[in-house]
Amino acid sequence: MDNSGLILGPTLATLEGDAGYGLIADGALAWRDGLIAYAGPRSGLPKHLTGDGIETTGLITPGLVDCHTHVVFAGNRAGEFEQRLQGVSYEEIARSGGGIVSSVNAVRSASEDELLAQSLPRVHALVSDGVTTLEIKSGYGLDLANERKMLRVARRIGESCGITVHTTYLAAHALPPEYANRADDYIDQVIAWLPVLHEEGLVDAVDAYCERIGFNPAQTRRVFEAARALGLPVKLHADQLSDLDGAALAAEFGGLSADHIEYTNDHGVQAMRDAGTVAVLLPGAFHVLRETKLPPIDALRKAGVPMAVATDCNPGTSPLLSQRQAMQLACTHFRLTPEEAVRGATQHAARALAVHGDRGVLRAGMRADFVLWSVAQPAALCYWLGGDLAQSVYAGGLRINR
Amino acid sequence: MDNSGLILGPTLATLEGDAGYGLIADGALAWRDGLIAYAGPRSGLPKHLTGDGIETTGLITPGLVDCHTHVVFAGNRAGEFEQRLQGVSYEEIARSGGGIVSSVNAVRSASEDELLAQSLPRVHALVSDGVTTLEIKSGYGLDLANERKMLRVARRIGESCGITVHTTYLAAHALPPEYANRADDYIDQVIAWLPVLHEEGLVDAVDAYCERIGFNPAQTRRVFEAARALGLPVKLHADQLSDLDGAALAAEFGGLSADHIEYTNDHGVQAMRDAGTVAVLLPGAFHVLRETKLPPIDALRKAGVPMAVATDCNPGTSPLLSQRQAMQLACTHFRLTPEEAVRGATQHAARALAVHGDRGVLRAGMRADFVLWSVAQPAALCYWLGGDLAQSVYAGGLRINR
Ligand SMILES: [Zn+2]
Ligand SMILES: [Zn+2]
Repeated sequence: MDNSGLILGPTLATLEGDAGYGLIADGALAWRDGLIAYAGPRSGLPKHLTGDGIETTGLITPGLVDCHTHVVFAGNRAGEFEQRLQGVSYEEIARSGGGIVSSVNAVRSASEDELLAQSLPRVHALVSDGVTTLEIKSGYGLDLANERKMLRVARRIGESCGITVHTTYLAAHALPPEYANRADDYIDQVIAWLPVLHEEGLVDAVDAYCERIGFNPAQTRRVFEAARALGLPVKLHADQLSDLDGAALAAEFGGLSADHIEYTNDHGVQAMRDAGTVAVLLPGAFHVLRETKLPPIDALRKAGVPMAVATDCNPGTSPLLSQRQAMQLACTHFRLTPEEAVRGATQHAARALAVHGDRGVLRAGMRADFVLWSVAQPAALCYWLGGDLAQSVYAGGLRINR
Repeated sequence: MDNSGLILGPTLATLEGDAGYGLIADGALAWRDGLIAYAGPRSGLPKHLTGDGIETTGLITPGLVDCHTHVVFAGNRAGEFEQRLQGVSYEEIARSGGGIVSSVNAVRSASEDELLAQSLPRVHALVSDGVTTLEIKSGYGLDLANERKMLRVARRIGESCGITVHTTYLAAHALPPEYANRADDYIDQVIAWLPVLHEEGLVDAVDAYCERIGFNPAQTRRVFEAARALGLPVKLHADQLSDLDGAALAAEFGGLSADHIEYTNDHGVQAMRDAGTVAVLLPGAFHVLRETKLPPIDALRKAGVPMAVATDCNPGTSPLLSQRQAMQLACTHFRLTPEEAVRGATQHAARALAVHGDRGVLRAGMRADFVLWSVAQPAALCYWLGGDLAQSVYAGGLRINR
C-alpha cells in the first residue's frame, strides 16, 4: 500500500493556531509514509514533493476525531425510543427490563464476533462521514469477561477499519443488576479488574459515570486513584443531569476531559482551565433527552477552556452515526460557532485524547489523517443535516472510506 | 430494463390502513412492469409469482414521499448560518444582501444547466436515503424566465433520477427587490405568469408564502383564485410564524395541504379536517430557527387530520438532505410517534400530493416504489441520526440508488 500522495487545488482548513480555520485557497497537501509532508498554498509546494497529484476542488480538513463514543454495543433501543414517544415512562421501561440493563444483557449475550459484527456498520458510518480517530468506551459488560470483550472488539475495530481507536475503561458506567444496592462492592471489582485489562493492553484511559443515577464522587475518586496508580489518564461523565462538582474532580486528577458538563459551575470551569482539561460537549444526548440546561459555553470561552464536540454514539440517549450531526446540533442547541464546532471535532478533540501531538491539524509532520469534502467552506459541515459530504477519508495516508 | 422482481424474507411495513405499521414478518414482495403484484407473507405468495427471488433480511417500507422541498436552488447560505452564530442579526444580514435575496440572485445568475448541476447532488442525497417521490417548488426566480428555469430543472431532475417529481409554482414566495413596496403589483404578475407556465406543463400545484413577512391573506386568495380558474390544486405555507388563519384559507380552496402550521388555531384544524387538507409538518425549519411554538399536534390527532413530515429542504431555514432526519426531528421536537412519522413520510405525504391512489403503501396494484432498509423495525428509521440505512431504493420497480 502506498501511503504517500499529493492533492492539488482544494481549499485547506488547517485549523492551525487558536483562531480561524487556517484557510488556504488553491492548496496543496503532500504526504509521505503516512505523514503530512506539506500543507500550504500550491505555489509554495517544495520541488521535491511535486509530481502527479490529484487535481480537485472542495475542502480538506483534518480527519475528524470523535473523542467520546459508546459505539460498541449489541441490539439497539429503538423500541424504547418508540415506547417513550407512546407515553411510557422511564420507570416503566426500566421495570420491564429496558434502559441500560437491556444493553448490558445484549452485550453479555453476544459473542465477541457478534459484537464486532454489530458494531462495525456504525463505525463505517462514522468513518464515511469523516472520522479517522475514534474513542470507544466499555461499560455495557460490567464484569471482567464482558468488559474485556468490549475492549477487544474496540481494538479489532481499529485494525479492521484502518483508524486509530482509543479505548476507555468505563466499568463504572452503571451498577450491574447482580450488585444492586452494593455500589461500593462493585467499585472494588472495577478497581480489581482494571490492572488485569491494562496488563492485556486494552486500556488507554479510565472513565466513570458520576451522577445521582450513577456513581457518587467518592466512588469516582476511588476509580481515579486506581487509574493514577497505573499511570492511566482519566476523563469523566460529569455534571450531565446535576451538579456534583464532577468537572472539578476530573480536573483534580489532571483529567483529559470532562464530558457533558451541562450543570458544571464556575469553580469547575476554573479547575478545568487550570488543569488543561478539555470540555467535551455532547449535544446528541442533549437533543434526544430534550434537555434545557445548557453547558456553560460562555464561561468556557472566557476561561479559554478548549471545547470538543463528540457524537456520544450510544443506543440509549445519542444514536448518532455522524459527527457532522453532532457539530450541527452543537451549533443549533449550544450556539457554538461553526469554527468552534470544527475545531471541537479536530484540534480540541485530539487534545481530549492527548493525541494533539500528531493529529487534529494539517501541518507537516502530523499524521496524514484528512478528509476531502464536497463543500467549499468549513461552515457548510455544520450547516447541512444529512447528506454524504465526505468524498474521501484518509488515515495515515491511506484512503479508508468506501 | 427489467422492472419486475421478487424479494423474499424481509419484514414488510405496508402502512396499510389507519393504524399500525402493517408489519408482515418473513414477507415477500413481487412486482411486475413497475407495479406491486404481491406484498404479504412469503407463505401466501401466489404460485405464478414465485421464482428466483432475492433472499434478504431487513425491512421494506413504501418509498418515502418528500412532499415539501425547495431543493432546486443555487449557492447555499452556510455563510449566513455562520454569521448568525457569530451574533450578526437577521436585519444586518438582509441589509448586506443575505437572506432569501441572495438565493434569488444566485438562481437568477445560474444557467439552467448550472442550476441542475448544483441541485442534483442534494436530490441524490434524498434518494439515497429513501425518497422516491419528490415535490419541488419554484420561488427563487420571482420572474417569468427564472421561475420557468426552476420548474424546468425540477422536471429534468425527475427524468435524471428516475423518481417522480411534483412541481409547485411558488412565485408568491417573496417579493422580488424590483417590486419593493408594490406587492399587489407583483401578485398581478404572479397571476399572469401562472397560465403561461401551466401551458408549458410545468405546474402541478400552486403555493404561496402567507405570512406577515410574506404575502397577506387577500393576496394569497388572489393567487388561489387564479389556480382554481386553471383547475390547479393549491397548498400553502401557513401560520409558520404568526396566526393569519392561513390553514383555513388553504382548506377553503380544498387545499392539498397546509404546511408548517405552528400557529394554526382550532378553527383552522377543523377547516382542514372538513376539507381533507393534509397537515405538513416541517421540523427542520423549527429546529434551525429554534422555534418554540409547536404545531397543534394533539388537535390534529383528535380531528383526524392526516399529518405528513417533509424536509422543507431549502438553503435558509432547513438545509436537510435526509427525510429520516426530518422524521427524527418530528419525533424529538413535535413528539410524533415513530409510527406517525413513518406514515407521515409515506401514506400521508402521498395524500398531500394527491398521489395516494398509486403510492404511499405497499399493496398489489400500487407503484413498485419501496426501500429495503438495513434495520429490523420501522421505529429505527426515526431513531438513528445519520448513517446510511437505505440498502436499496426502488422506484417503478427499478433500483435507483447508487
Ligand atoms: Zn457517554
Ligand atoms: Zn417551504
